[in-house]
Amino acid sequence: MDTNMDNRNFTLLTDFYELTMMQGYFECGADKNQRVIFDAFYRENPCGGGYAIACGLDQVIDYIKNLHFSDNDIEYLRGLKIFKEPFLDYLKTFRFSGDIYAVPEGSVVFPMEPLVKVIAPVVEAQLVETAILNFINHQSLIATKASRVCYAAGNDGVMEFGLRRAQGPDAGTYGARAAVIGGCIGTSNVVCAQMFDIPVLGTHAHSWVMSFDNELEAFRTYAKLYPENVTLLVDTYDTLRSGVPAAIQVFKELRESGKMPPKYGIRLDSGDLAYLSKKAHKMLVDEGFEDAIICASSDLDEYLINSLRLQGAKINSWGVGTNLITSKDWPAFGGVYKLAAMEKDGEFIPKIKLSENPIKITNPGNKTIFRIYDNETGKIYADLIALADEKYDTDKNLLIFDPIATWNKTVLKGGTYTIREMMVPVFKDGVCVYSSDPVMKIREYCKKELDTLWEETRRFANPHEVYVDLSTPLYNMKKKLLDEIHDTTESTY
Amino acid sequence: MDTNMDNRNFTLLTDFYELTMMQGYFECGADKNQRVIFDAFYRENPCGGGYAIACGLDQVIDYIKNLHFSDNDIEYLRGLKIFKEPFLDYLKTFRFSGDIYAVPEGSVVFPMEPLVKVIAPVVEAQLVETAILNFINHQSLIATKASRVCYAAGNDGVMEFGLRRAQGPDAGTYGARAAVIGGCIGTSNVVCAQMFDIPVLGTHAHSWVMSFDNELEAFRTYAKLYPENVTLLVDTYDTLRSGVPAAIQVFKELRESGKMPPKYGIRLDSGDLAYLSKKAHKMLVDEGFEDAIICASSDLDEYLINSLRLQGAKINSWGVGTNLITSKDWPAFGGVYKLAAMEKDGEFIPKIKLSENPIKITNPGNKTIFRIYDNETGKIYADLIALADEKYDTDKNLLIFDPIATWNKTVLKGGTYTIREMMVPVFKDGVCVYSSDPVMKIREYCKKELDTLWEETRRFANPHEVYVDLSTPLYNMKKKLLDEIHDTTESTY
Repeated sequence: MDTNMDNRNFTLLTDFYELTMMQGYFECGADKNQRVIFDAFYRENPCGGGYAIACGLDQVIDYIKNLHFSDNDIEYLRGLKIFKEPFLDYLKTFRFSGDIYAVPEGSVVFPMEPLVKVIAPVVEAQLVETAILNFINHQSLIATKASRVCYAAGNDGVMEFGLRRAQGPDAGTYGARAAVIGGCIGTSNVVCAQMFDIPVLGTHAHSWVMSFDNELEAFRTYAKLYPENVTLLVDTYDTLRSGVPAAIQVFKELRESGKMPPKYGIRLDSGDLAYLSKKAHKMLVDEGFEDAIICASSDLDEYLINSLRLQGAKINSWGVGTNLITSKDWPAFGGVYKLAAMEKDGEFIPKIKLSENPIKITNPGNKTIFRIYDNETGKIYADLIALADEKYDTDKNLLIFDPIATWNKTVLKGGTYTIREMMVPVFKDGVCVYSSDPVMKIREYCKKELDTLWEETRRFANPHEVYVDLSTPLYNMKKKLLDEIHDTTESTY
Repeated sequence: MDTNMDNRNFTLLTDFYELTMMQGYFECGADKNQRVIFDAFYRENPCGGGYAIACGLDQVIDYIKNLHFSDNDIEYLRGLKIFKEPFLDYLKTFRFSGDIYAVPEGSVVFPMEPLVKVIAPVVEAQLVETAILNFINHQSLIATKASRVCYAAGNDGVMEFGLRRAQGPDAGTYGARAAVIGGCIGTSNVVCAQMFDIPVLGTHAHSWVMSFDNELEAFRTYAKLYPENVTLLVDTYDTLRSGVPAAIQVFKELRESGKMPPKYGIRLDSGDLAYLSKKAHKMLVDEGFEDAIICASSDLDEYLINSLRLQGAKINSWGVGTNLITSKDWPAFGGVYKLAAMEKDGEFIPKIKLSENPIKITNPGNKTIFRIYDNETGKIYADLIALADEKYDTDKNLLIFDPIATWNKTVLKGGTYTIREMMVPVFKDGVCVYSSDPVMKIREYCKKELDTLWEETRRFANPHEVYVDLSTPLYNMKKKLLDEIHDTTESTY
């Protein structure tokens, strides 16, 4: 994994059926260039929360830019004996030529909203489904999880420590990227820090202590080597009887020699963190080390951090691994990619997919998201999923209504609200027209985005659901399509 | 991601503290070449099961072979202003020079058993911790999950369909590799199939159906394109009123024209799979299509497949995505890498890490695993974690005992059991001495390995726990070390 990782050719990182369907569209002659619109969206907020953080767009951009079938790829496909020569020929010069719109990374988003919209010839739009979902699903999941963990930690820093438990190298690396966008102050993952210019963090392991004859010697050596940040892991043998006393001894020696480090403290990695941190804190304070960092790192997640803080644990720095990097209690984002429209005679005909479950009925047409902010508080009032060409005049009153319980209506008074379109152009005719910010800047943006949520939406238990309504034109289009299908299939929907 | 993916340089795919500790050992002068032994092992079987499948060794091998710091890597580390020039100089020519032993991929393994053992100079052994754990943790997790899903499916084939929901590209690709080793018959992931020569599978999506004016036309076109395998997705609009009748219509037309495909059938991707499959099966049989494949693919896992089979669902092919590729109910394997011994004056001194939790106390020394099979059944009787140089004579009686409840003893009669050493040499003095089998061959081996388990160990609820005991010499070594530490720290352990 070098810094060219982003230049990996992910063209065959796709489900086989995308390729068989591509050939299908290709064989249908003129139809292969028929333009379609696909939306990538999700249906349920991770971890039962009230929102998600969109993430992974930068990798989508790299992927689209690099999309091409190498000779090896074509040779492989030929060997499967299912693809015909004209199609394989066509793949040789295949490039993405369409448009992509997306919500910027770090944005707060809600279920059913298109996070990525692809407008392209059907062969192209079909191929990119799997990889786009893979990138967006993974990173949006981890960014969302990180924002929850950081919310629980309040003003304390949260460090991403999960590489060894991640689901493979990319999960560790792009997961750490997403975790930082979601709020972590840095990562232990060196290659991620290198690739994305993120602070890299860490101290030492139990093996460091075990490799010395005793803890004191291990700590002394470490302090001499890294005099800027002496954070000592104190639980190798016995936290309160051996580890903390040895650490205090070293801090005393540093103080006496006038070499007190700018940052110093201890790390607790096992045991009862509430009890141990309070005891250790008292031991440190009794010796005059009030400003010692007490870092904890043992199977933490947002709920445990919350609980430790409620118990008055004396911890002011958190290292979070497994539960963050895998989003352990909710390890899949569940994003899908659905056909919304198909061009016919130069016009997009809206398409819909049915389901017995109303939430699984797709929203048709060429859509965007309008976010409505309350002018007084700056908080999100509601989102409107709307047709891309709709215009709103914020001086006028705006009627919004629940798309399922349509009798739930609200009128927003003109002048009290602001509207922002959330989707921005990313590719135009195959050319990238968007430049991603550095990760630490996206992190800042994400922080501001999270500030547009009410506390009631951020809480973990029964969060307030932000209203995501359909605009009147979109609602009417959807209703008309449903009525038409009922007429033709005589179904019971 | 091209076929050279395995040649990616993962050298900085490591936690930062591995590098700071490396420099620590380096600065300690003569000590940097002091040899140590680290074990990678896990503590709890995934999903509450009775076993795990070891997987990921092939990627460990590629990683170790390619281990080197590029100029870019060294430049990056220099920029952090924490590493000194002599150490950075040393990294320029850094290579792995040690020995590695491991359990072959596809083997059945149990908690506390070393899956990978690294014997190397401390600087080298420390660096490789994170990446080894990342590879082994991820793939062992997914291989284990897959073996459970395939067990539930009985003789039906299980297809891996999870790429879009995987935690990044590697999770999708190496996860699919592991899923096939664990028993899946193939994957939808094209790049994985290409890299590892695995059957690639899939048919078409809802978007294919939606892009035609009606289902019948979509199905007809598909059948014409892919006459060898006509598996039609029938739930885009209404499974029983529209999808299945249209599929049957196409099958009839194929039959009438004498072009009945060798493989044909339907795929159900939503709704009540028990009900729909039975109804669809009856509709197919009524028209003479008894041998139609009925494939299901909707948020499946081992429990749901089990339940559907118990309900008499007429499904004979399973596509499993999200829940397998993320191991949704148990998304982290939890493997750790612990120091077991340190060389002093040419001899390995055993090392131990304590914990209040007995399962977290490590096993010291240079170890291996001896697997004891019952000659009559070929099933595993018990495993012995033992010192690497122990010898056993299977003609003699063998006393084994529970390492915690030591009064639980059994004597195996000479001649009734066989012993197999599970760990094999992989690297010797930095040179790879092991050649991995192709994935489909590892899959066959894994199948045989699973046959050495009793059904009671494979079941999902309250599986029988296979005995993993310590040999008498290892038990005595551990006890002696614990006694010594108690004497010096006066701890309460």
